[in-house]
Amino acid sequence: MRISALAATAGLPVATVKFYLREGLLHPGLASSATQASYDESHVRRLRLIRALTGAVGLSVQQARTILDLVDEPGDDLYATLGRAVSALPPAAAEPAGDEASADDPYPRARHALETLGQVYDPRFAAVAQLESALEAAESAGLPLSHDRLLAYGRSLREIAAYDLERMPQGAREAVEYTVLGTALYEPVLLALRRLAHQDIAARRELAG
Amino acid sequence: MRISALAATAGLPVATVKFYLREGLLHPGLASSATQASYDESHVRRLRLIRALTGAVGLSVQQARTILDLVDEPGDDLYATLGRAVSALPPAAAEPAGDEASADDPYPRARHALETLGQVYDPRFAAVAQLESALEAAESAGLPLSHDRLLAYGRSLREIAAYDLERMPQGAREAVEYTVLGTALYEPVLLALRRLAHQDIAARRELAG
Repeated sequence: MRISALAATAGLPVATVKFYLREGLLHPGLASSATQASYDESHVRRLRLIRALTGAVGLSVQQARTILDLVDEPGDDLYATLGRAVSALPPAAAEPAGDEASADDPYPRARHALETLGQVYDPRFAAVAQLESALEAAESAGLPLSHDRLLAYGRSLREIAAYDLERMPQGAREAVEYTVLGTALYEPVLLALRRLAHQDIAARRELAG
Repeated sequence: MRISALAATAGLPVATVKFYLREGLLHPGLASSATQASYDESHVRRLRLIRALTGAVGLSVQQARTILDLVDEPGDDLYATLGRAVSALPPAAAEPAGDEASADDPYPRARHALETLGQVYDPRFAAVAQLESALEAAESAGLPLSHDRLLAYGRSLREIAAYDLERMPQGAREAVEYTVLGTALYEPVLLALRRLAHQDIAARRELAG
């Protein structure tokens, strides 16, 4: 198809598609003449990915490029690639701070929580800093996460995470795409479902009481 | 204590505490002379709540006021009050849109998902619009939430929600505070824990494989 048909299929202005081509986010079409190129399903798919990253996921073009580069060149160490790709997603990791943090132990709350759950603690992974900030915020609001709550949340989220990983596609490129989009796009679904489950349980009690 | 000691205890500038007093977010102290007032633990507690709402939760002063008003006057229908308080939290509900939405059925994806889960569907509740947007975003990125995934996520999040509600304090004011802060402040904890569970499961496979 021509660029105009590609743009229409992807639901984007032609100028935007040309911009992605110039920036190298979208691979060139097959030249069909000196001034025209032909595009296929791989371009439609790529545009859908770019649109998701810069739209729903909320990345800048530069941040999207980091992830697209990992999709294009997943390398041999898929585990490290997936870690880097997820670390490129929002929220951006905050600087380690807090009274109890030190250069030796920048994420004491997250480290303790992960040790309690018996999980890998790898401070290079952005979600560790994210957990530290979240635990610190809850603590300073007077609602520290109790040991018991950590275990309850940890157990349920592990079920979700296991479900996610069981369904990861085989190919490396597909695995990176699935991990990035599945992490980012299902997060708002999870939060909405928790709030709606609160509402449902409360409504049943209300009716019962 | 005097206002300077109150500010120091709360970790806020005196000017900020005076601003909250003027705005009526913080209740006045007990007048101890024509120009001085005395503050107690209730003021420290209130400032911690205001700070959490306008800081970690990210509300504007006006949005925080909506929630503080519900804490102060929870009324007789606690269920409705909790619903209003949670609906005042981010993310702000998007306008119903999407091809399949209509005035009669503005949230078709969310309605279908809640019916599948056997949960209450009440479109006045903001999380319904939030779920609709989240499902729509996943769908247009080519990663629609499957029936099976919905059931898996729904089951695990219901466990979390049941845990949350079992621990809700008895008093109405305390219940509103707990619900608002517990909803908002534990959400980033939940998302970080999911990402870290992915990492942990993937790391174990890597080691095993």
